[in-house]
Amino acid sequence: MNTLTRRLYAARAQQGQGAARPAPAASASPAAAPLRPAAATASGGADPLAAYRITREPYWRPVADEVALYEAAYAVRMPMMLKGPTGCGKTRFVEYMAWKLGKPLITVACHEDMTASDLVGRFLLDAQGTRWQDGPLALAARYGAICYLDEVVEARQDTTVVIHPLTDKRRMLPLEKKGEVIEAHPDFQLVISFNPGYQSLMKDLKQSTKQRFGALDFDYPEHEVEAEIVAHESGVDRETAGKLVHIAERARNLKGHGLDEGISTRMLIHAGSLIAQGVPALSACRMALVRPITDDADMRDALDAAVTTYF
Amino acid sequence: MNTLTRRLYAARAQQGQGAARPAPAASASPAAAPLRPAAATASGGADPLAAYRITREPYWRPVADEVALYEAAYAVRMPMMLKGPTGCGKTRFVEYMAWKLGKPLITVACHEDMTASDLVGRFLLDAQGTRWQDGPLALAARYGAICYLDEVVEARQDTTVVIHPLTDKRRMLPLEKKGEVIEAHPDFQLVISFNPGYQSLMKDLKQSTKQRFGALDFDYPEHEVEAEIVAHESGVDRETAGKLVHIAERARNLKGHGLDEGISTRMLIHAGSLIAQGVPALSACRMALVRPITDDADMRDALDAAVTTYF
Amino acid sequence: MNTLTRRLYAARAQQGQGAARPAPAASASPAAAPLRPAAATASGGADPLAAYRITREPYWRPVADEVALYEAAYAVRMPMMLKGPTGCGKTRFVEYMAWKLGKPLITVACHEDMTASDLVGRFLLDAQGTRWQDGPLALAARYGAICYLDEVVEARQDTTVVIHPLTDKRRMLPLEKKGEVIEAHPDFQLVISFNPGYQSLMKDLKQSTKQRFGALDFDYPEHEVEAEIVAHESGVDRETAGKLVHIAERARNLKGHGLDEGISTRMLIHAGSLIAQGVPALSACRMALVRPITDDADMRDALDAAVTTYF
Amino acid sequence: MNTLTRRLYAARAQQGQGAARPAPAASASPAAAPLRPAAATASGGADPLAAYRITREPYWRPVADEVALYEAAYAVRMPMMLKGPTGCGKTRFVEYMAWKLGKPLITVACHEDMTASDLVGRFLLDAQGTRWQDGPLALAARYGAICYLDEVVEARQDTTVVIHPLTDKRRMLPLEKKGEVIEAHPDFQLVISFNPGYQSLMKDLKQSTKQRFGALDFDYPEHEVEAEIVAHESGVDRETAGKLVHIAERARNLKGHGLDEGISTRMLIHAGSLIAQGVPALSACRMALVRPITDDADMRDALDAAVTTYF
Amino acid sequence: MNTLTRRLYAARAQQGQGAARPAPAASASPAAAPLRPAAATASGGADPLAAYRITREPYWRPVADEVALYEAAYAVRMPMMLKGPTGCGKTRFVEYMAWKLGKPLITVACHEDMTASDLVGRFLLDAQGTRWQDGPLALAARYGAICYLDEVVEARQDTTVVIHPLTDKRRMLPLEKKGEVIEAHPDFQLVISFNPGYQSLMKDLKQSTKQRFGALDFDYPEHEVEAEIVAHESGVDRETAGKLVHIAERARNLKGHGLDEGISTRMLIHAGSLIAQGVPALSACRMALVRPITDDADMRDALDAAVTTYF
Amino acid sequence: MNTLTRRLYAARAQQGQGAARPAPAASASPAAAPLRPAAATASGGADPLAAYRITREPYWRPVADEVALYEAAYAVRMPMMLKGPTGCGKTRFVEYMAWKLGKPLITVACHEDMTASDLVGRFLLDAQGTRWQDGPLALAARYGAICYLDEVVEARQDTTVVIHPLTDKRRMLPLEKKGEVIEAHPDFQLVISFNPGYQSLMKDLKQSTKQRFGALDFDYPEHEVEAEIVAHESGVDRETAGKLVHIAERARNLKGHGLDEGISTRMLIHAGSLIAQGVPALSACRMALVRPITDDADMRDALDAAVTTYF
Repeated sequence: MNTLTRRLYAARAQQGQGAARPAPAASASPAAAPLRPAAATASGGADPLAAYRITREPYWRPVADEVALYEAAYAVRMPMMLKGPTGCGKTRFVEYMAWKLGKPLITVACHEDMTASDLVGRFLLDAQGTRWQDGPLALAARYGAICYLDEVVEARQDTTVVIHPLTDKRRMLPLEKKGEVIEAHPDFQLVISFNPGYQSLMKDLKQSTKQRFGALDFDYPEHEVEAEIVAHESGVDRETAGKLVHIAERARNLKGHGLDEGISTRMLIHAGSLIAQGVPALSACRMALVRPITDDADMRDALDAAVTTYF
Repeated sequence: MNTLTRRLYAARAQQGQGAARPAPAASASPAAAPLRPAAATASGGADPLAAYRITREPYWRPVADEVALYEAAYAVRMPMMLKGPTGCGKTRFVEYMAWKLGKPLITVACHEDMTASDLVGRFLLDAQGTRWQDGPLALAARYGAICYLDEVVEARQDTTVVIHPLTDKRRMLPLEKKGEVIEAHPDFQLVISFNPGYQSLMKDLKQSTKQRFGALDFDYPEHEVEAEIVAHESGVDRETAGKLVHIAERARNLKGHGLDEGISTRMLIHAGSLIAQGVPALSACRMALVRPITDDADMRDALDAAVTTYF
Repeated sequence: MNTLTRRLYAARAQQGQGAARPAPAASASPAAAPLRPAAATASGGADPLAAYRITREPYWRPVADEVALYEAAYAVRMPMMLKGPTGCGKTRFVEYMAWKLGKPLITVACHEDMTASDLVGRFLLDAQGTRWQDGPLALAARYGAICYLDEVVEARQDTTVVIHPLTDKRRMLPLEKKGEVIEAHPDFQLVISFNPGYQSLMKDLKQSTKQRFGALDFDYPEHEVEAEIVAHESGVDRETAGKLVHIAERARNLKGHGLDEGISTRMLIHAGSLIAQGVPALSACRMALVRPITDDADMRDALDAAVTTYF
Repeated sequence: MNTLTRRLYAARAQQGQGAARPAPAASASPAAAPLRPAAATASGGADPLAAYRITREPYWRPVADEVALYEAAYAVRMPMMLKGPTGCGKTRFVEYMAWKLGKPLITVACHEDMTASDLVGRFLLDAQGTRWQDGPLALAARYGAICYLDEVVEARQDTTVVIHPLTDKRRMLPLEKKGEVIEAHPDFQLVISFNPGYQSLMKDLKQSTKQRFGALDFDYPEHEVEAEIVAHESGVDRETAGKLVHIAERARNLKGHGLDEGISTRMLIHAGSLIAQGVPALSACRMALVRPITDDADMRDALDAAVTTYF
Repeated sequence: MNTLTRRLYAARAQQGQGAARPAPAASASPAAAPLRPAAATASGGADPLAAYRITREPYWRPVADEVALYEAAYAVRMPMMLKGPTGCGKTRFVEYMAWKLGKPLITVACHEDMTASDLVGRFLLDAQGTRWQDGPLALAARYGAICYLDEVVEARQDTTVVIHPLTDKRRMLPLEKKGEVIEAHPDFQLVISFNPGYQSLMKDLKQSTKQRFGALDFDYPEHEVEAEIVAHESGVDRETAGKLVHIAERARNLKGHGLDEGISTRMLIHAGSLIAQGVPALSACRMALVRPITDDADMRDALDAAVTTYF
Repeated sequence: MNTLTRRLYAARAQQGQGAARPAPAASASPAAAPLRPAAATASGGADPLAAYRITREPYWRPVADEVALYEAAYAVRMPMMLKGPTGCGKTRFVEYMAWKLGKPLITVACHEDMTASDLVGRFLLDAQGTRWQDGPLALAARYGAICYLDEVVEARQDTTVVIHPLTDKRRMLPLEKKGEVIEAHPDFQLVISFNPGYQSLMKDLKQSTKQRFGALDFDYPEHEVEAEIVAHESGVDRETAGKLVHIAERARNLKGHGLDEGISTRMLIHAGSLIAQGVPALSACRMALVRPITDDADMRDALDAAVTTYF
């Protein structure tokens, strides 16, 4: 089987530094330092992409050849499409690769009300009249970042069509409203993601868009790997983490039989974090694994039963 | 049963101060002081969140472990989802927890015409050109408040997608129109609510959104507790309050059999307040309990009969 | 039966003053002075609500306990909902109560293209940049008026959701675009109306909105009372007025059998006013009672027959 | 039968004056002077309604009591609704009554993209910032004109709801965006029109709107009267005019049997005008009566046959 | 048969002048001078309609009485409606008549996203504040041009309703946003066109619009005439032109049997122009006649067969 | 068979220059210099079309007479329509022809949210008020470029109608909002493309648009030619390229039987580029050929089987 699986979430090697800040969400280790630098504003002088550089290595343990394949794709600047279910690590993988390649990463969460101008830029009114403001795609193309359009299938067509001239030989971005043509920086690469389980009915990318991308599949990791990740990320012991993964595996079998999606690795880390905080395992699982994803009484009973089987 | 119930409405311990102001809505005690400080404008200099700090303890009597669970969730900054029927105290619980944790609380009532810009912010035109105005979500993320999106399922997709990067490990909020990335303040937490009875048909959160939250269930309190709350909040005696709760319990059994929702604790306090003002109990119940929720003649008869059973 | 009925239209006690102005619509008495003061502009300096104060008593003869019930509701600032068919006097009742309580009244006719900004306010561009303009709801909340949203069910959801924080214990109005939170003035009360006959199919208030209000029912007055009102308001004699009411009662029986609504008291006053002007009764009834409400030939015959029965 | 019929189009008594201007559309008499004064701009200083005053009597020969009924309605400022098919003279009647009553007339052709702001007014940006521009309804209400909303049923709901406070006892127009309440000028009256044949399916006025108006019915005039009008207006002899009316009567019998509308008096005047210019009668009828209203081959044959019967 | 046919496209009498410019589209004669004057900007000082005057006679050979009928219609300023299939010469006829009558011509291609403001005008922001910009309809009405709305049925209702007061006796154009009423210049006339084959299903003009116009039918010319036009316009010999017309006649018989429209005269001139450039007739016909109008394999075979029959 | 096929992608004759820049997407040759000049901004002084000139010959090997046909069409400025499946070289052909004819090329990727203003231009606010900004179509028409509207069928009707006066004899572009009429520069030509496989259901060009264009068909090249292109462009050997073409041919036979589109030449070059980077052929094909175009398990198996047949 050649589906790629990957190791989730950053290593805790940096534990102990920067203890002045409380822990960010879903992080049980109280002193974990942030992954991003302090200067988070893009409008600074020297480096317009400073806010988008990743200064600390995100944790990623390659399972198959996904890192090598991505490196080869980046070498020829092939636009990439990452496919997989919710919360399985697509965003993390892009962050890891951006770090590994030493390139800035600009991430855009797509939605159906996003316009092409939200990507490309727009004129703002200034004291001296209108001033052009690059959108995230123009910023990435102009100065050379990896631009990651998360859940691109949610976006309107004008958003997906606007990437066409950036994803073929031309590698350019016409700013029609400004009358400028950006020739993409040599470092620029476009990456998109979507969840194949969603896009089947009404929403799908146009064939003329799909054909512009190479594609990598992602899925939840195997049992041992996932348990290790959960233990590592949440702070629970290896045995508890294994039980949580067992619960998730049961829930994933219910996908399509009353559940739209299974329980993701991210949710297991949530549960583990609560347990590590002293919350009883039953309460933690109900709060982090069961209640969020279903309100159906029968389905809740089934999931609660899975929880009590292990705790 | 581990469904959380909670005590409604603030204690009247503060009665007697600030008597110059008339009683606010649904408050029978004429001299109750306001819960909010005088300086209600956010644009003040020193503390941009001054208008959102809760200076007086809202009344909350924990029934189950909801306070401890929430505290554990906040400790790891897990985004939280509060589920339950209309008027059962979700908003009050968040206010109580914000007070208990000593964090400011920014509440946003979501609706289907709300845009992502309403949350994130927008440029306003000024004498010196455009000026950025943080939206409530950006304000909370930048300066460290709990941001509570009430009835989030009513909002459009761009509103729900905009919270994604704030609710995973990244904890950041890209202000794409401004070209800035806000790294969330360590105190920031996102809380959302919705009513599972509503969202079943067309509106539902995307799975990729749900999975980012831990969830707590809420429901109406048990008989004795609810009667105590009604008596306390409305000023009627304990026996009258008990009768009102009996009427509510009958109405709640009609939910799904002609009533979309039962009678909430808030409505009982309305009825009690009118009785405490000298309105006859029958008139008060019709006005506050029956007439607001149904125009169906049979259903009105059934509810009126329930009222006359007790009064 | 405890449905409230009420006396329509202002008493003519003021007849004879201010004769320089022609009669306003539907008023047969040529010298009736206006109910509103001359200074109708809200932008005046001292009292921002001057345009909304009611300086002359609107005519209202209480039938049941509606005045006492409303007074009790206002005493606890309970938000109120007035239900009843078109043209039965809901608006007049609110005007009367505002006069009786000595509070300004801001009325907003809701419609489906009204936005939350139309209620709350917006930024206008000025020579010095943008300037905030309070909407009618913000004006009422800030300075203490009764705000009456007429036919609220016509409005879009963002309009109804925006009133939520004003109608529970919080009594506040967040001006998200301005970054301000208005704490409602102690005099502020919210009143809404709608016609239950309309909202049955697609449009209805959300339960979470309905539960925030106490409700009063309104209907057309009884025969004797209505005839007295028609005679009084239109200037016809008591016998003619009685005939007009008989015609209306026949038409009201046809509601749901080919007529969407019956003939309202307002329409009877229209007919009476024409008769008082010398128009033959048959012509007056056709013009004021029959032609406006139906184009169906059979229904017109039925109504014309009712007219010729009495004239 | 009490359906009102009326004489179409202005008398030619004024023929011979103002010969410097070519004939306006549909007018065979080459020297007819315009009905409107030269100063057609409303922004003039002294009289803001100068552009809307009618200085020359429009031709109108009362058939029934429509003039007297309208005068009675205006005396009590009853809002009026004019019903009837396309091109039967509703607009002309309002112009005649405005002239007879000596009041300015502001006509608005309603359409489904018209907003409330188009009626009420809006802020315009000026060198000194925003400046309020009264819409036609505000202009009429403020300075005292008859405001005629033509085909009001085409307008969106916000347009029809905005007239409510102007059409009941209050006679006021809240300019919510400006924070002003216009108390209607004593001369103000609102008149609306619509074609009952159109509004049956999706579009209809709300009952709460209809009930605010008295109504007058209009239809095509009787044979002799219509022939006289056609002869008079188009310049053809009385016999030719009679033939044209016969053709129209045949076409009107086809309404609902393949034709949406019959041939209107306006179209007959078109045909007569062409004949008076020397165009052969057959060509003139095809061009002015048949070709405009149908592309169906069978229906064209039927109408062409009706033409050749008389010419 | 009284269907009007007309001669297409301008005579080449002017050949030989102005050779400095390359040939415009679809013109085989390399030195044809442009029909329009050099100063194509409307903002010039003296004559606001200078850009719209036609200084050179467009070619038009009257077939029936269409020129005389139009002249009679213009004499009484009757609004005109030109009906006929795509590319049969409606636009050219209007240009010819405008030239013959010596009036400027303003042409507007209608579409479903066109608003009334696109026709009437709008305020633009200037250094001194807002400035009114007449739209094409206001320009024509104010200064006296023929205004030609091409394919008017594509436009939204607000566009068609806005022409009503210009197309009845009033001949005025209210600029509601400006508060001005334009009384139409005596030279003004409104002309509209549409293709009856299109408007049958969802789109049609309202009857109240249609009745305001006289109508002329247009169709493709007869064989001999069309061949002469094609030869003249494209530069091919008379025999080749005849073959092209034969092919078109075959295709027109397929209309409704797999083809939405037949091959127009314009397309024949395209094919002829390519042949005159040395392109083989088979290639030219496929490129100019067959490929543009169908992708259906069978229909392409049928049309290709028709081509090979003659070439 | 007269379907035109063409050679894809630029020759590598320029290899070796400009080695400082990394390779653009889908280009295996690391030192390929960009096709576009450095000055990519249109706002430069002297030549407003400088950014749109093609200074280096794009690779194109004519198969049939497509180059000659296009040259003949350009000689008479016939508007052109290029038809063919996704990724078969339509855009490249236009670039080649623009280079060959020595004309600038302005390419616009159409989408359903594009407005006519996006093509024609709009007013921008400046320090001195509004300033007109030509859109790409106006720029091309004014200064003389080939304007290429890619996938024009995606655009809204206002976009397609706006090109009408530019594509008939008039060759003009009315800028209605500016009050200017651009007479097209003699060099101007309009070219559009679309994919006949897409537009069959809801989207299609109007007949009145189609008839204005000559049309050329495009398809994937024959086996030998395509293999040569793939080898040349991707850097793999001729044998491997041939295997890739075999896989594509199998996939193209599945079009309509589970695949919306086959595998394009562009995708084969993607796969070849990865192989040339050292990626195993199986992985490269899955990533570049199979995963991007289908998520259906059976279809993936079928395509994977085709891959393993050859590798």
